[in-house]
Amino acid sequence: MKSGAVSSQELPEKYRMLGGRGLSARILLDEVPADCDPLGPSNKLIFAPGLLAGTYLSSANRISVGSKSPLTGGIKESNGGGVTALRLAQLGYGALIIEEKPGPGEWYYLVVSEDQVVLKPAGDLVGLGCFAAARSLRQQWGNKAALAVIGAAGENRMNIAGIAHADQEGLPTRYSARGGLGAVMGAKGLKAIVILPAKQSRVSYADGNLWRELAMKYYANLRSNETTAVTMPKFGTALTMELVDSLGGVPTRNFSAGRFEKAGEIGGVRLREVILARGGEGDPAHACMPGCVVKCSNRYPDAEGKLLNTPMEYENNVFLGSNLGIGDLDTIGRLNYLCNDLGVDVIETGASMAVAMEAGLADFGDGSAAADMLQQIGQGTELGLKLGQGALRAGKFFGIGRVAAFKGQTIGGYDPRALKVNGVTYASSPMGGDHTAGNGIFVKTDHLDPAGKVELSRNLQITSAWVDSLGLCTFVRVIHTGDPEILPGLANARYGAAWDADDLTALGKRVLGWELEFNRRAGLEKTAAVPEFLRQDPLAPHNSVFDVPESELKEIWHELGAEDSAK
Amino acid sequence: MKSGAVSSQELPEKYRMLGGRGLSARILLDEVPADCDPLGPSNKLIFAPGLLAGTYLSSANRISVGSKSPLTGGIKESNGGGVTALRLAQLGYGALIIEEKPGPGEWYYLVVSEDQVVLKPAGDLVGLGCFAAARSLRQQWGNKAALAVIGAAGENRMNIAGIAHADQEGLPTRYSARGGLGAVMGAKGLKAIVILPAKQSRVSYADGNLWRELAMKYYANLRSNETTAVTMPKFGTALTMELVDSLGGVPTRNFSAGRFEKAGEIGGVRLREVILARGGEGDPAHACMPGCVVKCSNRYPDAEGKLLNTPMEYENNVFLGSNLGIGDLDTIGRLNYLCNDLGVDVIETGASMAVAMEAGLADFGDGSAAADMLQQIGQGTELGLKLGQGALRAGKFFGIGRVAAFKGQTIGGYDPRALKVNGVTYASSPMGGDHTAGNGIFVKTDHLDPAGKVELSRNLQITSAWVDSLGLCTFVRVIHTGDPEILPGLANARYGAAWDADDLTALGKRVLGWELEFNRRAGLEKTAAVPEFLRQDPLAPHNSVFDVPESELKEIWHELGAEDSAK
Repeated sequence: MKSGAVSSQELPEKYRMLGGRGLSARILLDEVPADCDPLGPSNKLIFAPGLLAGTYLSSANRISVGSKSPLTGGIKESNGGGVTALRLAQLGYGALIIEEKPGPGEWYYLVVSEDQVVLKPAGDLVGLGCFAAARSLRQQWGNKAALAVIGAAGENRMNIAGIAHADQEGLPTRYSARGGLGAVMGAKGLKAIVILPAKQSRVSYADGNLWRELAMKYYANLRSNETTAVTMPKFGTALTMELVDSLGGVPTRNFSAGRFEKAGEIGGVRLREVILARGGEGDPAHACMPGCVVKCSNRYPDAEGKLLNTPMEYENNVFLGSNLGIGDLDTIGRLNYLCNDLGVDVIETGASMAVAMEAGLADFGDGSAAADMLQQIGQGTELGLKLGQGALRAGKFFGIGRVAAFKGQTIGGYDPRALKVNGVTYASSPMGGDHTAGNGIFVKTDHLDPAGKVELSRNLQITSAWVDSLGLCTFVRVIHTGDPEILPGLANARYGAAWDADDLTALGKRVLGWELEFNRRAGLEKTAAVPEFLRQDPLAPHNSVFDVPESELKEIWHELGAEDSAK
Repeated sequence: MKSGAVSSQELPEKYRMLGGRGLSARILLDEVPADCDPLGPSNKLIFAPGLLAGTYLSSANRISVGSKSPLTGGIKESNGGGVTALRLAQLGYGALIIEEKPGPGEWYYLVVSEDQVVLKPAGDLVGLGCFAAARSLRQQWGNKAALAVIGAAGENRMNIAGIAHADQEGLPTRYSARGGLGAVMGAKGLKAIVILPAKQSRVSYADGNLWRELAMKYYANLRSNETTAVTMPKFGTALTMELVDSLGGVPTRNFSAGRFEKAGEIGGVRLREVILARGGEGDPAHACMPGCVVKCSNRYPDAEGKLLNTPMEYENNVFLGSNLGIGDLDTIGRLNYLCNDLGVDVIETGASMAVAMEAGLADFGDGSAAADMLQQIGQGTELGLKLGQGALRAGKFFGIGRVAAFKGQTIGGYDPRALKVNGVTYASSPMGGDHTAGNGIFVKTDHLDPAGKVELSRNLQITSAWVDSLGLCTFVRVIHTGDPEILPGLANARYGAAWDADDLTALGKRVLGWELEFNRRAGLEKTAAVPEFLRQDPLAPHNSVFDVPESELKEIWHELGAEDSAK
């Protein structure tokens, strides 16, 4: 981004059989000084499709974006849906690496196609919200172009900024949200990436027959599982509201309670009812990426049937809903649309606003006040800048101690006082407070009991690390539970490898080892401090605290030593 | 039932730590000549609460009814919800055993209370449908009495006859449906059993503190599982329609297809919508037994809000719906109400009617014709008597070969060509074609792949055997998956035993061993013949057949030898 030069090289042999999160982690460890300024020239921003991307296999086209995070100060990977990974992989790219930064005020966008990879001046794109920027790019480059864009938050290098990937309809609503990676993109003066479709896909198969055979089994598993065949397609991730409410772990009014009296108003069952009743442009089952048959996403219409927001997900309904005391879907949808246009992580942004509400800057439940705060984030007012630094720092500005952040990053919609395995993940993931690193919500266990949760979280985190490296959606792990030969077999059919399930586990451990090593070099502890209120303030209705002992937490990565990170 | 005498005895030491299905199996093996006439005087009919019954623990009050089955010619246990088990257990009874039979035309009912256990002449109860009989008994014995009644089908010793247990509202709609046990009750001249509430429960705890501690964990697990906390309470077992339709295994028009074009009209999502939209006496979440927090049952109202039928379950929606080509809930509800009044097993009855439709006696989809057939069953017309013998024999009358029966009994709503683990269960369970003996629907696997299904089914069947012996609902097994110490621990807290998870497995194996030994003595093979069409006719949409090899099927009980049955 300094010289404007673009170069490409063959994937080095040492990166063979790496993709997505794993490839990004290894490149960061090899090429980025861990103590660098995340927004400075030495940091790199990596877009890496997973190993199975580009194939149209359902749920296999997540795009991993990796970098050193300005929010956590450690390594970060944040994967999203959309078309980005498919296009990149079909052009034959293992990763895009964005390096350096341009002079002050210079803005570019990158166009990747079969014929050229070129940086172009961003011109009028600068200052546009994500939707307008995407619309302009589609007009110029066609509706089939994959897009990754940032909005005002990214341009202003805010910690809450994410990167928006265009979905199949071209709307920039599929997010690499977490960790402030939009700020890194903004610091590099990169407003957008455009990836044009390959005329002919470069994805090939070492053993096409094996691929087809295993793909059949893969789909058979998706069809046979209640989550992937019924509840996700019908109700989406929003149905998690009902489950976490049952558990008593829904973040409510800045983490002051674990059940929200209006949970039923903003859960998956109600969501589906409203979408179907309103009809029009609404769709209760929408694929976030090409080929996905699970279709847990959706398009939410307004009362007239016009698209109001896409998608309505559990985390959105928590952080723009229950955790702000807001209990109606239309308000959540409008706030979510504003977030998507600003280009922000809904979790971190919503958590900042909840802290502001607790500080008395607005009343819980006041949707207009929340919309005003979002507007101020876009305008970069003093309040907007405070909120834009994320919940932890907002809490310091406003004098609020109840901030559910680990390594500086707000947790997902699972209060660890009621869902203890997730507390272990928040505390010990190299990613900081991030449920996607090892979410225990579908694990059958007594979530109130602290016993055994370290081991559960460790196994979930190892699995997540390789699932994210294959570019798979988290829901696909049910396939692996059912038949542990399918996923390694698909990698073998694609690349001619000889993996089994143990190799996937080994890959997950290696990736975690690299990430932990990066964080060590960056000066971060393996486990983060647990916010005091989670240890001390009982959470209604179960009145439990997060009581997994510190001594157990500290042991979680005991086995992941130098030998793993050296590989 | 011959002398009218009633006697009670202490539970023999050898029956300690047996309950429900296990106790019934052991008593049948010890006391009933396996080659006897199921409808003759030597057969016995046993009502046995499970080991954890009487405690108000959620989902722990299933009543096991056991006997030699007139349908399969082998041992049978069929468990149901309602209040029967709770009342029996709280009076301190381990089992009721009904023996012998009275003279022709003599009918009695049994009253069990703290003060007396007495046979009374049935008088005007004879000839009444289940609902009228239950109403009359409630008027005489009060609304808190537990009731087990038979209707016209049982009085007429039909193979399709079940035994109806009153639910908490006194409606006789919770069934020990399968195996023709209602015919055994009818052959014994027993129209009903009335069990009055204990003034003080005799259920006590060896370690009350341990009980409370484990019960807390038990509820925490129920709350934390998507199935028990969200999908079952909201949509009931009817949501299985959506899942099995996804799998392509919904019995449709007498097992001629695996997907029903109107599945969405009779699935769990639609069911909930209709119940909520109509309101009135409808309830989408109804507990089938006292204390149950899962509430997978429901009350279905008509368009005016008056109760039309309770409950609407998946199997009902298949065997009175898709398998008859009927795609609307109101018709299914009306047919189900008629079935409940006749006192029949909906699976066997519906399967008989589907065979009749295939034979051209009525058109698929004709709800009025189905209602007429049910009326003829009640009247005992020639057609009614043919249908009343069950689908296999109806098929022989009508010249129809496509009958999905194993050991003479129709399978549950999971076509084994698309759900192969269930095919193994149908073929190898001592219960004959009975999905409840080992249902694989919630197992994560490629259900089209025959590999590994024998082992899966074996493990499911072993688990079912001990789950049924504890008196637990099948959904509770998620607790055991999450924490295998809770269920044995509850038995320990109740009885002062020292069980662990392995002891439960051992119990399941012992029970299966006894059942297999009973069947051996009755002249039945360990595995049943697989109906030819399941091996030969591909099932749309996956065009698969049931292809688990016979050689593998035959090995399933290899390990369960004489030593198990001798214990």
